[in-house]
Amino acid sequence: MIAIGIDLGGTNIKAALVDRKKGFVKTSSIPTHADMGKDHVFDRIAMAVADLLEGHDEKPIGIGMGMPGMVSMDRKVVKSPPNLPGFKVENVADQIEKRTGFKCVIGNDANLAAFGSARFGVGKDLDNFIMVTLGTGVGGGIIFNNKIYRGTTGMAAELGHVIIDYHGPLSNSNTRGGIEAYLGQRFLSRYAADTIRQHPDNPLYITFHKDFEKLEPVDLYHAAKEGNSLAIEILRKTGEKLGYAIVNYIHVLDIRKIVVSGGVAKAGKFILDPAKETASRLLMPPFLEDFDIIYESLGNDAALLGAASLAFEEL
Amino acid sequence: MIAIGIDLGGTNIKAALVDRKKGFVKTSSIPTHADMGKDHVFDRIAMAVADLLEGHDEKPIGIGMGMPGMVSMDRKVVKSPPNLPGFKVENVADQIEKRTGFKCVIGNDANLAAFGSARFGVGKDLDNFIMVTLGTGVGGGIIFNNKIYRGTTGMAAELGHVIIDYHGPLSNSNTRGGIEAYLGQRFLSRYAADTIRQHPDNPLYITFHKDFEKLEPVDLYHAAKEGNSLAIEILRKTGEKLGYAIVNYIHVLDIRKIVVSGGVAKAGKFILDPAKETASRLLMPPFLEDFDIIYESLGNDAALLGAASLAFEEL
Repeated sequence: MIAIGIDLGGTNIKAALVDRKKGFVKTSSIPTHADMGKDHVFDRIAMAVADLLEGHDEKPIGIGMGMPGMVSMDRKVVKSPPNLPGFKVENVADQIEKRTGFKCVIGNDANLAAFGSARFGVGKDLDNFIMVTLGTGVGGGIIFNNKIYRGTTGMAAELGHVIIDYHGPLSNSNTRGGIEAYLGQRFLSRYAADTIRQHPDNPLYITFHKDFEKLEPVDLYHAAKEGNSLAIEILRKTGEKLGYAIVNYIHVLDIRKIVVSGGVAKAGKFILDPAKETASRLLMPPFLEDFDIIYESLGNDAALLGAASLAFEEL
Repeated sequence: MIAIGIDLGGTNIKAALVDRKKGFVKTSSIPTHADMGKDHVFDRIAMAVADLLEGHDEKPIGIGMGMPGMVSMDRKVVKSPPNLPGFKVENVADQIEKRTGFKCVIGNDANLAAFGSARFGVGKDLDNFIMVTLGTGVGGGIIFNNKIYRGTTGMAAELGHVIIDYHGPLSNSNTRGGIEAYLGQRFLSRYAADTIRQHPDNPLYITFHKDFEKLEPVDLYHAAKEGNSLAIEILRKTGEKLGYAIVNYIHVLDIRKIVVSGGVAKAGKFILDPAKETASRLLMPPFLEDFDIIYESLGNDAALLGAASLAFEEL
């Protein structure tokens, strides 16, 4: 059985033919051209679907699509997706059905990344886990009883906006001290630059002092691997922040497996070990049983596989 | 249809005959004598049940009991309940069945208070809400799709241990800056005393400066009602802290109705208005739709009614 998975972002439309058992059969990626308006974007999605199907005989059962923004409980309508101007409130599923002839369901991309992990990644053996995606922003998805936990209106798991310090730094939202303000890529880079500026002897200062804007989390990771103690310390403090957020997630949800994904998560043990140490110290003792933080290596593929999985299970 | 509800605390065993439609038929309360050991406590529960039944012909369908601590998913076994020495890991339901002849299910008392509100209180019209109990400690219960959300092992909704400031004050747990460290009765009293000490002209100073240990949240509430601006300010800052915690609950769960209960919640608008104002400012805008904080006036009866409701629905 195959389905089409789509990951609609502000920059690219990724699409894939996915076999329910074997995973990817074929993938593609084209620019979104989001600035040209929603009708143009729908046309490009239809084009991506047609390209995928060329030379394939087996008919997909339908389309599952992940995108940013709030998705209605019936999995058809999106509301105000960021980075997709002109979408506002849009019945995306109907538009895609009309243009492709395939039934379509949509989901929030961060939620679908969790679902992709649940069906094709490290979440396969877990009935319950919380995925935290550490990328440009911090997003999340909750898998409870092997399904996406969606809350009352489909907006659950805004994990990046969970406060760990109410007088902490601002992020993109109004919230101070949300976890995104520490682990979002830009915020982590800024914190790192501020710290490195005070250490002019450090190799990272020497490399980046002319333009700290160029410093990215991956540079910290590489420096840490080479034993740069300042980089290790920056990542450790960042990991501790993640630990506080994890305590909050677990104390509310009583779900003890934390799956992390995204670019910043590639810093691996330099962030995840202190996160685990911090959470282990602060969780109420009974929650420590079965507590673990697990790295998901599917990366961006998770959302695409999750989108196809949504088609398999909801169409 | 009637059931027996029991609320087993470290100090008192409260028991009630509850009619599924009409609520309380008869209630009683006897000291727990927790220090005399678990067998003695079970005997006293059986005694309370026998007393309740005297002169009643209709046979209850069974017993639902709320107690502190972690309750197993099958609703029989409790683990390390605080304030009940000697219980450790105990099949409480079997013990009570043996002694009373009635089937028995147990639940965490804070969870059952939420369930009581869902069946007999302000939660009756709500399919989804989060109850925050502001008493000696801060506890909670989550009602999702009209049922108690229990998480993976039955420990969900440790809402008092949700961090809002990772370098904040310590509470009873290891956690710094958990919401309990601001709204738990003892912590609020201490914060109030520290503040009032700096204002020797304030009527609260004049009343309590010889023994600030006697100052309780209810005194702040009374002073606030009389227009004492320092008391109003203390409660306002406390309410703001509750607001931060509420942001965390809602961003994780996407459940927008917050039901508050417990002694400290009696400070009413002096705490709840600033909590609502703070959360409204910090929640992501889409979550503001349907957001509300509602006071539950059932008080301690909520847990007892919730316990009986558990019997109605699970036996």
